[in-house]
Amino acid sequence: MTSQTFAVPAGAVERTIAFLQSRYGDRVNVSRAVRDQHARGEGLDAHLPPDAVVWPLDKREVCEILAQCNAEGVPVIAYGVGSSVEGHVSAPHGGICMDCSRMDAVLAVHADDGDCVVQPGVTREALNAHLKGTGLFFPVDPGANASIGGMVSTRASGTTTVRYGSMAQNVLALEVALADGRLIRVGSRARKSAAGFDLVHLLTGAEGTLGVITEVTLKLHPLPPEVAAASCAFPTLADAVAAVTELSLSGVPLARIEFLDEHQVRACNLHSQLGLPEQPTLFLEFHGTEAAVREQTELAQEVAASHGGTGFQWSTRPEDRSALWRARHLAYYAALALRPGCQSVVADVCVPISALADCVARTRADIDREGLVAPILGHVGDGNYHVLFMPMPDAPAEHAAVERVYAAMVERALEAGGTCTGEHGIGLGKKAKLLAEAGPDVVALMRATKQVWDPKSILNPGKIF
Amino acid sequence: MTSQTFAVPAGAVERTIAFLQSRYGDRVNVSRAVRDQHARGEGLDAHLPPDAVVWPLDKREVCEILAQCNAEGVPVIAYGVGSSVEGHVSAPHGGICMDCSRMDAVLAVHADDGDCVVQPGVTREALNAHLKGTGLFFPVDPGANASIGGMVSTRASGTTTVRYGSMAQNVLALEVALADGRLIRVGSRARKSAAGFDLVHLLTGAEGTLGVITEVTLKLHPLPPEVAAASCAFPTLADAVAAVTELSLSGVPLARIEFLDEHQVRACNLHSQLGLPEQPTLFLEFHGTEAAVREQTELAQEVAASHGGTGFQWSTRPEDRSALWRARHLAYYAALALRPGCQSVVADVCVPISALADCVARTRADIDREGLVAPILGHVGDGNYHVLFMPMPDAPAEHAAVERVYAAMVERALEAGGTCTGEHGIGLGKKAKLLAEAGPDVVALMRATKQVWDPKSILNPGKIF
Repeated sequence: MTSQTFAVPAGAVERTIAFLQSRYGDRVNVSRAVRDQHARGEGLDAHLPPDAVVWPLDKREVCEILAQCNAEGVPVIAYGVGSSVEGHVSAPHGGICMDCSRMDAVLAVHADDGDCVVQPGVTREALNAHLKGTGLFFPVDPGANASIGGMVSTRASGTTTVRYGSMAQNVLALEVALADGRLIRVGSRARKSAAGFDLVHLLTGAEGTLGVITEVTLKLHPLPPEVAAASCAFPTLADAVAAVTELSLSGVPLARIEFLDEHQVRACNLHSQLGLPEQPTLFLEFHGTEAAVREQTELAQEVAASHGGTGFQWSTRPEDRSALWRARHLAYYAALALRPGCQSVVADVCVPISALADCVARTRADIDREGLVAPILGHVGDGNYHVLFMPMPDAPAEHAAVERVYAAMVERALEAGGTCTGEHGIGLGKKAKLLAEAGPDVVALMRATKQVWDPKSILNPGKIF
Repeated sequence: MTSQTFAVPAGAVERTIAFLQSRYGDRVNVSRAVRDQHARGEGLDAHLPPDAVVWPLDKREVCEILAQCNAEGVPVIAYGVGSSVEGHVSAPHGGICMDCSRMDAVLAVHADDGDCVVQPGVTREALNAHLKGTGLFFPVDPGANASIGGMVSTRASGTTTVRYGSMAQNVLALEVALADGRLIRVGSRARKSAAGFDLVHLLTGAEGTLGVITEVTLKLHPLPPEVAAASCAFPTLADAVAAVTELSLSGVPLARIEFLDEHQVRACNLHSQLGLPEQPTLFLEFHGTEAAVREQTELAQEVAASHGGTGFQWSTRPEDRSALWRARHLAYYAALALRPGCQSVVADVCVPISALADCVARTRADIDREGLVAPILGHVGDGNYHVLFMPMPDAPAEHAAVERVYAAMVERALEAGGTCTGEHGIGLGKKAKLLAEAGPDVVALMRATKQVWDPKSILNPGKIF
């Protein structure tokens, strides 16, 4: 059941590929180029190609592929757009990559109920484009234009989570193909349920190790009548966090509260011509009625000023807001542009907000002491922060330094009562860190639970534990 | 593992009681009176006493009791205040009732982080009393003054869920004693996490069948600066639901939206001297800044009027608000007072809000056709509604009629894409209804998952499946 003991029976892969080709023809691909495209996501540099890629068109095909792979003991890796960063889609034991990108239909939009039903390959941007004119939107925004199936599987969150929740709060029901090809449904279109074990949440964040998602019922939210975006610079992160804490406790429902350190602001200035002062900076967004947004921005400006905030600029004009958030979304690429040819290690931890300023300051000190290039940014309202490490490929000393700083980040997060990953998941990259956080008894329970759902361990083997 | 096959080894109960008495003295009770007090909760009339009741004082004792019971194969039923309504605390196979009411300490309040850590026996009212002066509160409000451990275990929700979520959205971390007495921690004090399987949510709503909760980390929320309560009568429920739907889609963040049908209003008028028109009625509550609350109530009044709402009364005076919500909380007892000597069956289903008016109307028609006494009330914002059936104990024909109406309610809820229980859980009372909703494959997965956590099936056996 563990990655250490996993072995695919001899001839099983060949027989499975032959079966798939007989069924799906040119929707099966074994070329080097296509396998390489599916060998890794973003972030973690784990180039581990599958033996073949298949593009199912519907749930019936997903079930048929699983039944075949389960009978043969061949690994199956579900694939969305490959934007996850911890090696979730890599194939350490080979097998079949099931690329769900052609299962991209929005099956139903129930406007009065504020929900929709989609296939797993729909991306979040495509879903929001589809929702135009309904007065509703799907708020979870991890930056990348990820697929909904992938976002469910990594329990994704992002810039709007402080207001609208993560995937954990926005998945109502799932249809899932089990390892042996049976199809189950969990959850319902009701807003809440107390009907037995909460399998919707168990599957949300299971990283494709318990089943393959074939349909997702999502909560939608009313588009706010008014939106304002603001930016504000602070002398230190501690001042910015103090302002955010005061605002949060005042009950102001901030829709986004993003932190960029001075290095990240410089990168964004270079990349997106923002022209912001190169200081610790908050990007904020307010949603509500016109009166509510005005009240919120005024209060935010006042609170920010009382904590040393300067240059508070806000706008309700869509073009100004878009420029700000496009810059935020491009932060990753802006940072990478600081150092052409570099690799990237996107560190992700989440801590109680009272510990955030201290954790970030100590991490910054570690980075500077090691002489690394590494901007810091984060979702301050959630206590979630990222370091964008950018080691050069051929610099083992840099990689070792990154490992040291990252290990200290995680240790500090756990000491503060936090977690080793706020939103990126475990995948291949963080198995040791999960063990440190959860302990061997809890990881053993996860493994044993997986064993119940996937007795032959064909589903994304080698991930999480 | 199923209730059908459960058997306690001969002499095991006697040896276990002797062990507990040797360890805890008069904190073990085997008297008929005390066992009877722990034989059932509210609602379901299942008088099934345990063989003994023990009051642990700390997690160490919880673990010791579990280790003993697991070694002997003796059932353990965790007990809070006994306010659940589906027989969750009854002991169909005897065994040891672990009454956690003396583990009632608030261990920590982290005001800056908006969280707290409590023992499972703290009640929600005691917690909110403890929080006075912090500017924070714990919003989940099922009506009864339930224990936090019990609320976690039934995935409780209630009147404020439309704004603040159910227990599923408000539990950050759990410390849990496993069946064999080992202690684990799942979750963290971070606001979100993607660290492996979501065991916090798996345990939230597991009804004491996977472990015994020894510590709960809860999210807290800032007390709103202003609160207004309102009531409004409508010609029909359909008009009330149309108003609520329009308000929800307008993004007005209603904090409570409760529906009472004309029968329930009459009961509340008699019991609490409300003097309301005996029509389908909404109770609403608005939270926010003074300006936001004013804007929300004005909009609500306008929308209500456009759907035939009359007599819209609102108030920000605490005494007026309290009177309204006290009446709502006493609705259950007000209804029972309509029929002295009756039993109660509190039906609970949850549907997509677009189906609510039709489901309720058809249920009302069934009730009237059967000649039953049964007010209807519900959490309209969530699509969750209850029928308070009040059959007389010695009237089998009435009980049969209740069963027919309830079965039709559930069937209709499932057809509409809803669930057989929005907030009361499965317990002993709804096992067949869970099977109808989830299907045999999913219930088998729940059972197999339980088997992993509790191989000897000592934890609250006979519940859920």
